[in-house]
Amino acid sequence: MDTLVAGIHFPEDTPAAAIGHKALAVNLSDLAAMGAAPAWATLSLTLPESDTTWLEQFSRGFFELAERYQVQLVGGDITHGPLTVTVQAHGFVPAGRAVRRQGARPGDLVCVTGTLGDAGLALHLALTGDAPLRQRLDFPEPCIAAGIALRDHATAMIDISDGLLADLGHLLEPDGLGAALHVDKLPRSADFLAALETAGPDSVELGRDLPLGAGDDYELCCCIPEDNRAGAEATLAGIPCPMTVIGVIEGEPGIRCAREDGSRYTPSSSGYRHFSDTNGTD
Amino acid sequence: MDTLVAGIHFPEDTPAAAIGHKALAVNLSDLAAMGAAPAWATLSLTLPESDTTWLEQFSRGFFELAERYQVQLVGGDITHGPLTVTVQAHGFVPAGRAVRRQGARPGDLVCVTGTLGDAGLALHLALTGDAPLRQRLDFPEPCIAAGIALRDHATAMIDISDGLLADLGHLLEPDGLGAALHVDKLPRSADFLAALETAGPDSVELGRDLPLGAGDDYELCCCIPEDNRAGAEATLAGIPCPMTVIGVIEGEPGIRCAREDGSRYTPSSSGYRHFSDTNGTD
Repeated sequence: MDTLVAGIHFPEDTPAAAIGHKALAVNLSDLAAMGAAPAWATLSLTLPESDTTWLEQFSRGFFELAERYQVQLVGGDITHGPLTVTVQAHGFVPAGRAVRRQGARPGDLVCVTGTLGDAGLALHLALTGDAPLRQRLDFPEPCIAAGIALRDHATAMIDISDGLLADLGHLLEPDGLGAALHVDKLPRSADFLAALETAGPDSVELGRDLPLGAGDDYELCCCIPEDNRAGAEATLAGIPCPMTVIGVIEGEPGIRCAREDGSRYTPSSSGYRHFSDTNGTD
Repeated sequence: MDTLVAGIHFPEDTPAAAIGHKALAVNLSDLAAMGAAPAWATLSLTLPESDTTWLEQFSRGFFELAERYQVQLVGGDITHGPLTVTVQAHGFVPAGRAVRRQGARPGDLVCVTGTLGDAGLALHLALTGDAPLRQRLDFPEPCIAAGIALRDHATAMIDISDGLLADLGHLLEPDGLGAALHVDKLPRSADFLAALETAGPDSVELGRDLPLGAGDDYELCCCIPEDNRAGAEATLAGIPCPMTVIGVIEGEPGIRCAREDGSRYTPSSSGYRHFSDTNGTD
């Protein structure tokens, strides 16, 4: 169950179709991170005013995604107030095979699907409309197939909503573990690298810090024992979904980042933080 | 799934414990109206600021009610924004025995549980604190046992959240039916009648119009065939839960109200209306 508030979880200029899509997508992404197949959802919509055009576009965004994953809308509410969208989704996973946040062990490889930082760079550059990075921000695709493929290989998994460092932290904290990350191995898209060139003198740091901390990626971050790596890569290849090994779990608490030459790297941000640490209960 | 917005669904001065209680209660009330036993819930909390005392009191109100009905909190979200609480509840009902909004037939008796108008009079008189009517507004009790008792006797059922006339309308519209109501048979509590004496010259009209239209009662309104009346009253007596016959379903669309002397009565309000008619999807 996730709530999106206008101006906090999406820019005020976000198209209604994107709000409908994203409100469902972020919930399906949570199901993906447990290796679950989506089944049904409920929707609560709080609107400042009744606007038929807005509602039609919102519904189009919501239901196009729902149909793609065969999600049934089984209930909900619509009420008057500041623009807020809450979606709650249920899914199925075979008994005992759900992947949880807890379960990583020292030596496990830290892996991420897809590419990171696209949505963060769209926000940083205030991109609008059809720009590919803005589309990544507005229409994130939940990694349902990848989550199901990874559930028999990963010891722990989470989706990257608040930023890699923050969300990886949620995998480490339960067991008091840490991780070493190679910041120059962070997977970045061609669109990201092209747009980065327009970002000015900070582009090198942004190129590392946005994938590390910006969030809104809705990729999966998982911990995979070395022995399971080949199996995980083989199942993902069938989707296809790229996966990148970006580091390793360590016994010492904390996340340590290093450049390609081995020098220590200190990110400028540790990821988007809500005002409360209680955010997210799976 | 129901969303409560501060200043719209509860007064701004509502204690945090009452908000926690009410957010769950209104959802359990929807389950009661289908004859279901509650099972689990999810909670999404949007807060303008982090306030530990507020959260403790909210949690106390939420969990005291959850424990009373053995409802497990299985997930949720907490985020930053205008005070909004969304709860989504699941329950169980034996296959094929859920009572729906559709199903009433001409000749069925229109019945309500408990008493009506208490919360509405609390709002009208701006009562605060420990006043019994204010307690009815702040801490509504979902009619779970009554819903289960009625599920084998009622042809259609709904909980009264938006006001009797509006919610009864939801039972009539699907089949193009109408109803005749006896406004002098509306069940009113002793607290209601006592407080009504302080309401001034409008007290006679208020005494009818608040039970008809004010809402926030969270009692059940159901349609019961004459042949089922004795069975329904017998099962309710075991709870115990009072039930009052207030009218009859008719084939002609619309709701017609009459006084005890048979004269036509026109209510001043047809119940609290949200800006959209799409509110409520069971």
